Amino acid sequence: YGVGLGPGDPDLMTLRAQRLIAGASVVAYPALAGADSFARSIAVDVIPSSAREIVMDVPMSVERAPAQAAYDKGAVEIARALDAGDDVICLCEGDPFFYGSFMYLFARLSDRFDVEVVPGVTSITTCAARAGMPLAARNERLTVLPGPLPEEELRARIEGAESVAIMKVGRHLAKICGVIDALGLTDRAVYVERASLPEEVVLPLKEAP
Amino acid sequence: YGVGLGPGDPDLMTLRAQRLIAGASVVAYPALAGADSFARSIAVDVIPSSAREIVMDVPMSVERAPAQAAYDKGAVEIARALDAGDDVICLCEGDPFFYGSFMYLFARLSDRFDVEVVPGVTSITTCAARAGMPLAARNERLTVLPGPLPEEELRARIEGAESVAIMKVGRHLAKICGVIDALGLTDRAVYVERASLPEEVVLPLKEAP
Repeated sequence: YGVGLGPGDPDLMTLRAQRLIAGASVVAYPALAGADSFARSIAVDVIPSSAREIVMDVPMSVERAPAQAAYDKGAVEIARALDAGDDVICLCEGDPFFYGSFMYLFARLSDRFDVEVVPGVTSITTCAARAGMPLAARNERLTVLPGPLPEEELRARIEGAESVAIMKVGRHLAKICGVIDALGLTDRAVYVERASLPEEVVLPLKEAP
Repeated sequence: YGVGLGPGDPDLMTLRAQRLIAGASVVAYPALAGADSFARSIAVDVIPSSAREIVMDVPMSVERAPAQAAYDKGAVEIARALDAGDDVICLCEGDPFFYGSFMYLFARLSDRFDVEVVPGVTSITTCAARAGMPLAARNERLTVLPGPLPEEELRARIEGAESVAIMKVGRHLAKICGVIDALGLTDRAVYVERASLPEEVVLPLKEAP
């Protein structure tokens, strides 16, 4: 099972996610560069103390090979648990198939095992909810862009769009603000950080940190 | 409260949605053209029998005015309940701010009352989950297009896109298939109907009804 946990508030987990995790004998999740796993932190109060935990240590790197090696290793461990007759619940921030790393496990395991993907609430609709700003209405087009895209591409894609959500902002914020400002759209943009968590930040873009 | 209920399977409701509905004294929802409300059907097992139900009868019409009049009337009824000291739980299919009609109530009520929007699982990530096809990966762009868009616009937007989800397909299916076929993309497209419900259909697009 690849189980979406939603944006961070455990209350935004689905009933199905909660039930699957509460009944888990084995859970698996990635941990980035030795940090605590965000996915695990969302589910922590639901994971049975008896559950075995498979941690995939994913190094931070612009190269793809080291992370893929971590998923190779994780997939082997998960396959071993499945072969032994256990179900494995893979914990995924947000939704497993919306910019999620679960797809790497799915690609490695779905030919040999039954995999169910349980969708979750995404960060983009959570940000819209917290900002009090509908994401898309009626026959509007919605464009979702990852912040790491090059400046020129961001510019071209935002210019032709109606409603835009930019994900994975992080260290790309200055670049993104520059593009939005050059297009004269700053007053219509909102900045949301850690949506649904206690440390959530919602600001007009011009007041973004 | 504008409460997203997810794509249809009650198990894909969030814990927060379930708790709010289970404690509701007043629920409100739209019903299209006299048909049963899909939103209500998702939540039916959670709505307390003691809850009062405000039904907004939304007529089917290409004109916007008749539907807007229904939301005017609904907003008046909801405001009356709020003024009387009740919370009102507005039931929304999917996510309230992702192509949802809740925005019409939000626009009418949020200046006078505290409104919390509870995000929900959207149909697009549910379709990806059910089709076993990631919606967006790494630094891919995702474009969400409503099916009623004119053929030429659909064509232009799909042509420049990486990953595309088309919503509100209904009677636009032949037009959409024509556009996708002309672009040579039919073999890469999947058709999903009623995702997560017992009558769900998942097919390669070329086998779509």
